[in-house]
Amino acid sequence: MSRSIRLAVIPGDGIGPEVVAQGLKVLTAVLPSDTKLETQEYDLGARRWHATGETLPDAELESLKQHDAILLGAIGDPGVPSGVLERGLLLKLRFAFDHYVNLRPSRLHPTAETPLAGRPDIDFVVVREGTEGPYTGNGGSLRTGTPAEVATEVSVNTAYGVERVVRDAYERAQARPRKKLTLVHKNNVLVHAGHLWKNIFDRVGREYPEVTTDYLHVDAATIFFVTQPERFDVIVTDNLFGDILTDLAAAITGGIGLAASGNINPSGAFPSMFEPVHGSAPDIAGTGKADPTATVLSVALLLRHLGLDTEADRVEAAVAEDLAARDGSPRTTDQIGDALAALVSRAAG
Amino acid sequence: MSRSIRLAVIPGDGIGPEVVAQGLKVLTAVLPSDTKLETQEYDLGARRWHATGETLPDAELESLKQHDAILLGAIGDPGVPSGVLERGLLLKLRFAFDHYVNLRPSRLHPTAETPLAGRPDIDFVVVREGTEGPYTGNGGSLRTGTPAEVATEVSVNTAYGVERVVRDAYERAQARPRKKLTLVHKNNVLVHAGHLWKNIFDRVGREYPEVTTDYLHVDAATIFFVTQPERFDVIVTDNLFGDILTDLAAAITGGIGLAASGNINPSGAFPSMFEPVHGSAPDIAGTGKADPTATVLSVALLLRHLGLDTEADRVEAAVAEDLAARDGSPRTTDQIGDALAALVSRAAG
Ligand SMILES: CC(C)[C@H](C(=O)O)[C@@H](O)C(=O)O
Ligand SMILES: CC(C)[C@H](C(=O)O)[C@@H](O)C(=O)O
Repeated sequence: MSRSIRLAVIPGDGIGPEVVAQGLKVLTAVLPSDTKLETQEYDLGARRWHATGETLPDAELESLKQHDAILLGAIGDPGVPSGVLERGLLLKLRFAFDHYVNLRPSRLHPTAETPLAGRPDIDFVVVREGTEGPYTGNGGSLRTGTPAEVATEVSVNTAYGVERVVRDAYERAQARPRKKLTLVHKNNVLVHAGHLWKNIFDRVGREYPEVTTDYLHVDAATIFFVTQPERFDVIVTDNLFGDILTDLAAAITGGIGLAASGNINPSGAFPSMFEPVHGSAPDIAGTGKADPTATVLSVALLLRHLGLDTEADRVEAAVAEDLAARDGSPRTTDQIGDALAALVSRAAG
Repeated sequence: MSRSIRLAVIPGDGIGPEVVAQGLKVLTAVLPSDTKLETQEYDLGARRWHATGETLPDAELESLKQHDAILLGAIGDPGVPSGVLERGLLLKLRFAFDHYVNLRPSRLHPTAETPLAGRPDIDFVVVREGTEGPYTGNGGSLRTGTPAEVATEVSVNTAYGVERVVRDAYERAQARPRKKLTLVHKNNVLVHAGHLWKNIFDRVGREYPEVTTDYLHVDAATIFFVTQPERFDVIVTDNLFGDILTDLAAAITGGIGLAASGNINPSGAFPSMFEPVHGSAPDIAGTGKADPTATVLSVALLLRHLGLDTEADRVEAAVAEDLAARDGSPRTTDQIGDALAALVSRAAG
């Protein structure tokens, strides 16, 4: 039997191409010999926009659909007006491919440089809703640029959208040793959306009697991230709160250079997309200073999503081993990628 | 000449009355002999709601208006449905009295218990917009409780509302040694509100050429709070981002037990309101474990707002001295209040 993975690759801008190259290196090294990798590269991002004014043409959106998964590096540079590529490319993909589970695991690695180093085990995963909330692009501006301007942003939340992501989070909590799920929202102020989330969270919870549940306001959650992060197992939250909390999670567990994410369509109707949480970091692009680990960990999420659990485990173990061996001596992006590729090949050996 | 301060006091619930008692103790001790303090207590909060179903009757709102300032302890207990007292009392006061500057200073005290202890000086202030954004209560729910429910929350932002708070923040930055102002928003996703904020921030900035400016997305800001908090001087941000960031700020600078806030109406048309950032903490109410320092620091903000700068300095110096002398031996709420009152009296001596 032989399999093949049709992978769309969007290297993007800045350090994007550099880290994606390492991700592909490790992916190639870890795949079993009966599995073929067919990659197709898409030229999307700031460079393309500067050249043609295009963000994501329909033809390319259609073409991307034909793949099993997407690996994305990073999008954007300071020359593109804020919002153009985010709304026109990144969020367009997440919405068009109904990536309603935005999965962001956080683990405190032993040698990670963080103010929380040496604290008891931190190992939680944020299930961030990916297709609703304040990210829908609803809203607008009236009398723009005048002293009488009114600008609105509408957070849209549906029972349909909330229930499916909450259910996914319960499934993940149920499958983990601690079986704990925390809902984070702000239901004392955003009462309409907040009560929708809380009611569904409570109702679905009755189907998962083994899962311990908890609710926190988003402001209080940030405090616990700093003072007591070990209390979290699985967190489910809205699109914007998830955005904020996962950057904070990265900061406390060793930096944005280690934070992986998967934009997942669990039904499989559309390809899921895997990307490091960090941005294109134009200031260090081309210097070899970018840490490709977040991309490599995103590759692990990709493997797991495709059912290649053994290979995903192997990639995560390689990262853990590599992090444990770090002694502060500088390595290039390429060297870290080589080291990880060697570790997964040896394990496969 | 003799002056008098007409102070409305809302002790509220849980530890609220305990910490407010200490705040008043220190306030009384620090006031010059020619200044009379006339307090009037208002029975508002969870206890009142349980007893009568009332949150903030019109007559009391009118009566509160007659005061020079309001000191509030904490509101709420677990028996009140989420949102009832927040929307019906706390936010109602902030909106009715047009508290558009929600001022929240953060300072890392030498002996504070935080993962960031021993880091270079952290001393910044968040100017949180207090009357707009996602806090307006706009939005609603359709087909509530059914699988077809849609719930919305509308963030409302006006040039009028944004400009006045941005201007206030520039004034504060201009008056501080470092003269640096950072705008925090999420203008790559919330493009309408985000661009309104950014445009006004840039335009008003031209009137303050000495102030160095900076922009950060809210997610990135949480990272810098953990990794590089000393980069901040004054931060101006929207109501919800400010809520989240100031709890995080409290966590990194020694805990919510030290975080003070002022809900300020700079025009003086309505009384400003001073309150600790923490909640009513029903779990420790009555045990004497509550730290009244956040309330005492809120009293310092109150004094400064009333033009009593010397007295405000004295209260802050007393807190700094008390914190520096902490050696971990437990003290009651009352003992901390006594110590601070003694320190300010000695200084006044
Ligand atoms: C770039 C931006 C649109 C994006 C988001 O807000 O989701 C990023 O911050 C992320 O977390 O993936
Ligand atoms: C209690 C709640 C309404 C309030 C807020 O969200 O503003 C609180 O968290 C605060 O920060 O003062």
